[in-house]
Formats: sequence, C-alpha cells, structure tokens
Amino acid sequence: MSSGKILVAQGGGPTAVINQSLAGVVLEARRFRDVTRVYGALHGVRGIVNEDLVDLTRETSQNLELVAATPSSALGSTRDKPDQAYCAEIFKVLRAHEIEQFYYIGGNDSSDTVRIVSEQAQAANYALRCIHIPKTIDNDLVGNDHTPGFPSAARFVAQAFAGANLDNASLPGVYVGVVMGRHAGFLTAAAALGKKFPDDGPHLIYLPERVFSLEQFLQDVKATYERYGRCVIAVSEGIHDASGEPIATLLAKEVERDAHGNVQLSGTGALADLLCDEIKAKLGIKRVRGDTFGYLQRSFIGCVSDVDQREAREVGEKAVQFAMWGDRDGSVAIKRTGFYSVDYELLPLQAVAGKTRVMEDEFISASGTDVTDAFRMYLRPLLGSGMPDAFRLRPAPVEKILKR
Amino acid sequence: MSSGKILVAQGGGPTAVINQSLAGVVLEARRFRDVTRVYGALHGVRGIVNEDLVDLTRETSQNLELVAATPSSALGSTRDKPDQAYCAEIFKVLRAHEIEQFYYIGGNDSSDTVRIVSEQAQAANYALRCIHIPKTIDNDLVGNDHTPGFPSAARFVAQAFAGANLDNASLPGVYVGVVMGRHAGFLTAAAALGKKFPDDGPHLIYLPERVFSLEQFLQDVKATYERYGRCVIAVSEGIHDASGEPIATLLAKEVERDAHGNVQLSGTGALADLLCDEIKAKLGIKRVRGDTFGYLQRSFIGCVSDVDQREAREVGEKAVQFAMWGDRDGSVAIKRTGFYSVDYELLPLQAVAGKTRVMEDEFISASGTDVTDAFRMYLRPLLGSGMPDAFRLRPAPVEKILKR
Repeated sequence: MSSGKILVAQGGGPTAVINQSLAGVVLEARRFRDVTRVYGALHGVRGIVNEDLVDLTRETSQNLELVAATPSSALGSTRDKPDQAYCAEIFKVLRAHEIEQFYYIGGNDSSDTVRIVSEQAQAANYALRCIHIPKTIDNDLVGNDHTPGFPSAARFVAQAFAGANLDNASLPGVYVGVVMGRHAGFLTAAAALGKKFPDDGPHLIYLPERVFSLEQFLQDVKATYERYGRCVIAVSEGIHDASGEPIATLLAKEVERDAHGNVQLSGTGALADLLCDEIKAKLGIKRVRGDTFGYLQRSFIGCVSDVDQREAREVGEKAVQFAMWGDRDGSVAIKRTGFYSVDYELLPLQAVAGKTRVMEDEFISASGTDVTDAFRMYLRPLLGSGMPDAFRLRPAPVEKILKR
Repeated sequence: MSSGKILVAQGGGPTAVINQSLAGVVLEARRFRDVTRVYGALHGVRGIVNEDLVDLTRETSQNLELVAATPSSALGSTRDKPDQAYCAEIFKVLRAHEIEQFYYIGGNDSSDTVRIVSEQAQAANYALRCIHIPKTIDNDLVGNDHTPGFPSAARFVAQAFAGANLDNASLPGVYVGVVMGRHAGFLTAAAALGKKFPDDGPHLIYLPERVFSLEQFLQDVKATYERYGRCVIAVSEGIHDASGEPIATLLAKEVERDAHGNVQLSGTGALADLLCDEIKAKLGIKRVRGDTFGYLQRSFIGCVSDVDQREAREVGEKAVQFAMWGDRDGSVAIKRTGFYSVDYELLPLQAVAGKTRVMEDEFISASGTDVTDAFRMYLRPLLGSGMPDAFRLRPAPVEKILKR
C-alpha cells in the first residue's frame, strides 16, 4: 500500500538558483496522481531529524514560481554533516511519516547523506527511493559537466572583474579580488570571462589546483605592473603552498603569533588584506586594493544566468521522473551534448558521493596564472544571455603644444 | 574670434553612469555648429596639466553610446586635489589650446577645481565658460536632490542586502556588510531598500551621521539576535565615536599596538572583520560573517538604475545647453519636481564647491539604527525599474509524530 508521500530538502551553501530545483521537484511531483503529499524539511537534514516538516502540497504554483526565481534556499539550509548515526535518525523520521521518496538538493556532503540513507533503507528492506539533486557554486561534483548554481556565481564573478578592471584602468594600481572555492578553482577562473581587450584584467589568476608561492606571486605582480602600469588579480581563497597548507592559514599564523589574538579565515577579508600588505611592503606600490567577494557571489539578487535557471529547474524535474519511472536510487547529473545543449542522467550514488572534482589540466594555462581557450569555450555558454559588455573610447591624441 | 574648442574631463571615484554624462556633453556639443572640436583630458585634471588630450570629435556616435553604457570613467580619473598653483597650470593649458569651455564631471573636489579655474579665468579676463557636472556615489553634493552615480550604487547595495538577508535566513547567524561613505550615510542607508518582510534584514543600520558606541552596538546585536535568531547589519565605513574619530582607526590602533604591524584601513576588510571579532568575543555567537562591499558597489557591471542612466546623460546635455545659451559659470544640479520627475538648474559654483551634504534628520529613525519612510519614498524611485523581488514559501507545518 502506497502512502504517496515524498520529501524534499536543501543542504549546504545556498545558490542563486537552488529554489528552481525545489520548484522543479514540487511542481513535477504534483503532476503524478500517485503523489498525495509533497513535504519539505526546514533547514535540510536537521529539519528531518527535528521533524520540522512543511506541506508544500498546500503552496500555490504561482508562489512556487516566484520562490523559484528567488535566490538562497527557501526551505532553509544546514551545515550539519550527517554521519552513520545521524542518517539513522533521518531514516527513522522518514519511516515514521511513511515517506516513499527522498530528494536532497545539495553538494558533495549531501550526496553522501543520500547514499547512506539509501543503503540503510535497503538494509531495512524499506522501499525508499533516494535521489540526490546537484547544486554547488564550487562546480566540484564529479560526473557532471557542471553543477547548478555555478553558472550564476561565475557570472557574478565575471561581471565583478569586468567592473573592477574598468575601475582599475581609471585609477591605476593593484587590485586583488578573493573568490570562493577551497579545492576547486572553477569560480576563481570565471574571472577570466570578465576580460575583453588584450590589456584588460584579470592579468593574473591563482587557483588551488596549482601550488602558490609568495615569491613567485610578487614577481608576477611586479612584471605585470611594469608592463601595464596596473595589475588586476583573481585569487582563490583555497590557494596553498607545496605542503598543501592554505596561504590564509600561513599568513594568519604570523599575525596570530604577533598579536596573541584571533584572526578569522572564512567569511573575512583577511587573505585579500594580507596579500595587499605583502605587495605594498615588498614592491613599494602605493595604490593596492583588496576585495573579498564573500557572500555576494552566491546570494546577490539580480545576477543570474538564465541557462543556470533552466537547468536547475530541469534537474529537479528529472529527479522526479527518474524516481517515478526508474528502478534505482541515484544522483542526477548534467551531461553536455552540444554547443550548447545538455541532457540529464542518473548516476549511481557511489559514483558521486564524497568525491571532489577539481579543474582539469586542459583548462589551466602552462603559466598556471591564466585559463585556456578550452575553459572559455566551456564556461561562456553557461553564463547565459544578456551578459553586459564593456566598451572603450578609441585613441585620437591631440598634439601637445606646451611641452615639447 | 572663436576657436570653437571645448574640453571635458572626469575626476574622482568612478560610477556606473559617469560615461553617460561624458556622452551627454560630447553628443550635445556636436549639435552646435560653433563647436569645432570636443577634447577630452585623460585622467582628469592631471591629464590637463600633462597635456594628455584626446579628440573626441573623431569618435563615432555609435561607440559613444556603447561607452556611455559602460561603467567607470572612460577618460580615466585622478585623485589629485588641485590647489591654487595646480589650477594655474590647468588654466595655462586651457589657454594654450584656446579652450573656450571647460566641463568637469566630478564630486566636491572637482567642483572646487572648477570654481578656482573659473575665478582665475575672470581675473585674467579670458573668456572661459566653466561648468561642473555632478557625480558621486556618496550623494553628498549640496543643492542637489541627489547626484548621478548614487542611484546605481544604492541599487547595488539594496540588492546585495536583499541577497545577504536571504542567505542569512537560510543559514542563520550574524552578517555585517560594510558600505562606502565616509561622511554621508546615504549609500549605507540604501541597504534598507533591500528589506521586504517585517523580519527581513538589515535589522540594524549604522550611519556616520550618528555617534557610534561599541557597547550600544553589541547590545543592539544581542537584542536582535535574541528576537530573530539572526541579525543582518549595514555599517558605513565612516562610523565614528563622539570625538569624531573613525571606529576603523580606533580598532586598528589596538591591533597595531598588539601586532607591531600595519593594518590597512581603506580598500580592505578590516572594519568588518574587527566588528565580527567583537561580536564573537563579547556575545559568544558562533556564525558571524563580515563582507566589505569594496569596489563592487561602484563598478560592478550590469547593476544600474535606468533612472540614473537617463539623468546622468541629461546633466551632461544640460551642461552644454547652460554653457551655450547661458551667461555664467556654474554647477548643474538635479531638482525633484514630482513623484517621480526632475528638472535641472545651474547653481553658482560657490554654492556647491567644497561643501558636504549629509543625511537629513528626517531620513533617520529616532533609534538611529534605521531609516524613515520619508527616506524610502526619497530613494525608491531613484533605483529604477526592474528591481528584483524576493518571495517566500508560506508556512504549512506538518504535525509531528515522533517527538511529542
């Protein structure tokens, strides 16, 4: 006997399009007459173990469409990383409410949660269909061409650097922009898509896929500054030395040792500030400015890729279709099929769960401080339509009269 | 005998629409048959004294329109603050090139430059028409309802806080966003326009028009956090204590004393980080995040108010009309004439130059940490059309089964 109840939740860091996937699940599930209730859990897996559930069957399709276009997890999110015991608690609640399908929209950790819950259901001989729906601005899920949320965040980063480059050209100096991404440099690399003219910034890009050396960094900045009279730099928060130790930590330790105080590393401007201090001190350049894009890059309202919106909606819809018409649990994945078109498939949870993708070598230039045309070809269609463009006056110098 | 030559330049911090004013001057001036040449100076007044001039008469109207829609000063800018001797150098170059009209697009300092050049031309009995064209994201020019550039920056700040609020609601904690504006709090106050539902952030707004007390700040944050389980805060970089000393400096002094090192104040995340550290240390709240909007708020490409674009174009056009058909030097000013409509007038340079407007008392709530409806009425039409909106799921709790 079927209860016809399904449950959906959202985990991890929010994205600009994560509610498209939520709406995709809810609206698609409602089309199936066997579905009697669509529940949502508040604040991810924590909401499940706390039994904080809401009935999304009672929501209007009109409001679901409006919520879909609103950034950041509408059901709330959580940073809880469930272990085996936590997953057993999840399973207990799902069973008590006779949930037959469990959809979890999230990144690597969330996919691992779905995997464990799925295994526990099988062990208990409980018919629970478990589907992971991809989402992460880091673009670090294996088996996917890219992940929903990444294109919109990448668009923000590209637009931010296009503007920062114009600002820096108008008032020349050194500009350091720190971008999210601890292990994968995709989002930082997106800065390259803000570049149009050959002398535009970002002139240098530092990714966690390559070892960072402060000495080499200072040499690179010096050479660029001497060539262009200015320098725009994109830096991933995850840059690290040869031993794998993050530069943010290394630099912070120095400060802590001096100050006997605490220096915060995530959600702060510390890395940008410390790199700027190094440039000022060692290169003697006066105008050095650092920005940390922080939460703006994942939650700024009004900067979104229409391609990302459509695909985020579709992974939600496809998740329901795979659950209804398929015969196994899994993780929905985006496959590229043309320039530019995609299709979706259901990967085994084991193929995705707990694994981390980093930038492929073919996307990183030999210098290690730029991207390749292959990366530009990869990313450009994801940014969507209506990308703002930057134009310049053409030079037409007036002859000097006074100073000859 | 007329040379028919005019000169235009851009000074100070760039804005998203400063090139609209440039295009307004160039395209409007070209309509007058008496104008033989429209010159531009590269990097503001510095370009004048260096004779770095370009002939904008040779630019296509098509490209001028595209440049107009591109943020940040297309001619380049400068932070030079000309004194009497510097202005004499400017005057020398203008005279050598037989410039008959001088247009300077900028803020307070630029208006003062125009005033001095105008006075020197009169003293030398040289027929030079001098017009100041307003521009500043700080909105601190007297005699103007508002200044071009402010509405687009305000739109960025409002959208940033709308997104930060959604992010914070999804993963609750304390969020501090630091906004530009050393003396005037208009741009920080714009954060209030990102608020929709009654429990939305920003919950607290700290402006340079009111004295900042760290003790009171911590009390405010504590009370808000206890009420909503989270707290979103907008802080002006210019907040100061009763003596007028900026908090950034006060806090930095502490750090410097401890670390025997340098802490950078402008173009860094220091103030946000230091306020976050205080909240963590004194209130024991775990999830505290700080963002400094930095250069994104004035140069982000693709976040612009259409009202701002139109008005920035018009102050450029009107500047030329005032110069051609008027009989005096001056500063173009925006006057509000309806809800919402504007007109332009030419103020005496002395009425604007070197003066600073701050937020009127009627715009600040009695608590000092919020804005009034009068401010919302003032700002909303400036943000332009197509403002993104945020929507929520409506609560429909499912009855708990397990935990009673």
